[in-house]
Amino acid sequence: MNFTLRVLGTASAKPVPDRHQSAQVLSVHGRLFLIDCGEAVQRQLLRFHVPMMKIDSIFLSHIHGDHLFGLFPLLSTMGMQARTAPLNIYAPANFGPVLKFFLSYFGEGLAFEIRHVPLQMKQPELIYHTKSVEISAFPLDHNIDTFGFLFREKEPPYNVRKECIGEYGLSLTEIGTLKRGEDVVRDDGTVIPVSVAAYKPYVPRSYAYCSDTASFPELAQWVKGVTLLYHEATYTEEYADQAAQRHHSTAVQAARCALEAGAGRLLIGHFSSRIKEPARYQSEARAIFPETQAVSDGDLFDLPLLRP
Amino acid sequence: MNFTLRVLGTASAKPVPDRHQSAQVLSVHGRLFLIDCGEAVQRQLLRFHVPMMKIDSIFLSHIHGDHLFGLFPLLSTMGMQARTAPLNIYAPANFGPVLKFFLSYFGEGLAFEIRHVPLQMKQPELIYHTKSVEISAFPLDHNIDTFGFLFREKEPPYNVRKECIGEYGLSLTEIGTLKRGEDVVRDDGTVIPVSVAAYKPYVPRSYAYCSDTASFPELAQWVKGVTLLYHEATYTEEYADQAAQRHHSTAVQAARCALEAGAGRLLIGHFSSRIKEPARYQSEARAIFPETQAVSDGDLFDLPLLRP
Repeated sequence: MNFTLRVLGTASAKPVPDRHQSAQVLSVHGRLFLIDCGEAVQRQLLRFHVPMMKIDSIFLSHIHGDHLFGLFPLLSTMGMQARTAPLNIYAPANFGPVLKFFLSYFGEGLAFEIRHVPLQMKQPELIYHTKSVEISAFPLDHNIDTFGFLFREKEPPYNVRKECIGEYGLSLTEIGTLKRGEDVVRDDGTVIPVSVAAYKPYVPRSYAYCSDTASFPELAQWVKGVTLLYHEATYTEEYADQAAQRHHSTAVQAARCALEAGAGRLLIGHFSSRIKEPARYQSEARAIFPETQAVSDGDLFDLPLLRP
Repeated sequence: MNFTLRVLGTASAKPVPDRHQSAQVLSVHGRLFLIDCGEAVQRQLLRFHVPMMKIDSIFLSHIHGDHLFGLFPLLSTMGMQARTAPLNIYAPANFGPVLKFFLSYFGEGLAFEIRHVPLQMKQPELIYHTKSVEISAFPLDHNIDTFGFLFREKEPPYNVRKECIGEYGLSLTEIGTLKRGEDVVRDDGTVIPVSVAAYKPYVPRSYAYCSDTASFPELAQWVKGVTLLYHEATYTEEYADQAAQRHHSTAVQAARCALEAGAGRLLIGHFSSRIKEPARYQSEARAIFPETQAVSDGDLFDLPLLRP
């Protein structure tokens, strides 16, 4: 029942020695979701002992090189390691011809199917779900079609309190009723309230990935109440003009989004190589949203199970 | 007047934590030649303090991903760093559409011209020369069009011995004659032999890059007398069948080529991730050609000026 984020790259477009470009792996209940694929993502997976072959699916925010150039080397290696499980890549529609080109020139011998699921929504839309996880995508405001992703545990069914089973002599049908979150009403009029006889084992945890993007009003609503928010912060406040011009954000804008969304915690990254004091990102953001962390390559965030 | 090789990557197709994929930089008289571009070559350039913006030209042996996937991230970064100098890429003809695709999708904003010089020779051919360096390419035997490269200092002009200028009262015309390597014959019949009054400042140094390739008879002739030979050695002798089948070489085959070519020194690399004891490559090769070194990422080979 884990919910763990491993940050693999924290630089923006221009690489620097100690930071790779954007890539992250989110593990939810053991399923691995790879988010963006900056160059050398497969080396970062190796370095941090993430089992590459167990990647369930890939989420590409946009087709700028610093979020994409690590994908094809990774797919090639998956092929060499004899992956057979189909791989879904959720990516903007303009990723289609890029993938097609890769497959035609470098896809020989790949024994697994690569399915591009094109993103073109204008509002948040569910794109993936299992019994326990759901993932939606939403548009961001960048200079090319770009999407953010919200990963969320589904609302779990109620657990019936063991001591109540004996106490009330609950039948299997009644246990089922409670698990669905309904009160049991017996023929004799007795009511066994779900709030007494059952409980939610946990409150759903969630993670939102927002990169690259300018600040825009809807975003905070779309990630409302998220447990952990990653919001790009390419620039410090000094470069706010540059941020606006290039459809990027400042650390302060990321912090305002987190505050407005009521996020539990904010991670900022995608730092410009121009800013020589990364500590400034964090201090500027914390002035608005204290629960901010400027991320470094390799950072691990293990979200504990949230009890109600 | 330097002649220095920096090895950036030594793995074959499957990356391993401590080895990057094929890439090298050769510096000849201050000119930087990049040879192959495995993934993350730009990070390796950063790591070993090679000034990326001073790369004169690029030499791609073939378009397999492990020799190529680092190229486009590198070109993108050169663009961001505002390169304006045209860049020649010497690469097989089938690189053409790959470059075209890259430029159409990721080339926006590149302010320098990228010229693909297609290679399709069947014999060694001169592809590049300056006043002091010449580079030729030759076909290798791989499962896709692949070329090797021979980098060689040109034969330097003679230097006239300073003490002879006064002793013989040499005129400017006579100095010119000696520099061209001709004896001076005066009207009175006096002969001033070039062997007495002049000398070669150095013997040309050379470097040959041969990867990926099976062993074939002409290769040793084509790199005859090379000072430093890099020859791939994907497999140890145990996997000789695999080497043949996949158009690769064993360490022993690389050593035989060096021996037959009369190379000064042999470097082997492009090691398979399957072989767990890299020391075996070196010991197998040294049994045939003692001056062999199995290379590691970051190895530097500085060839001293060879005095005649």
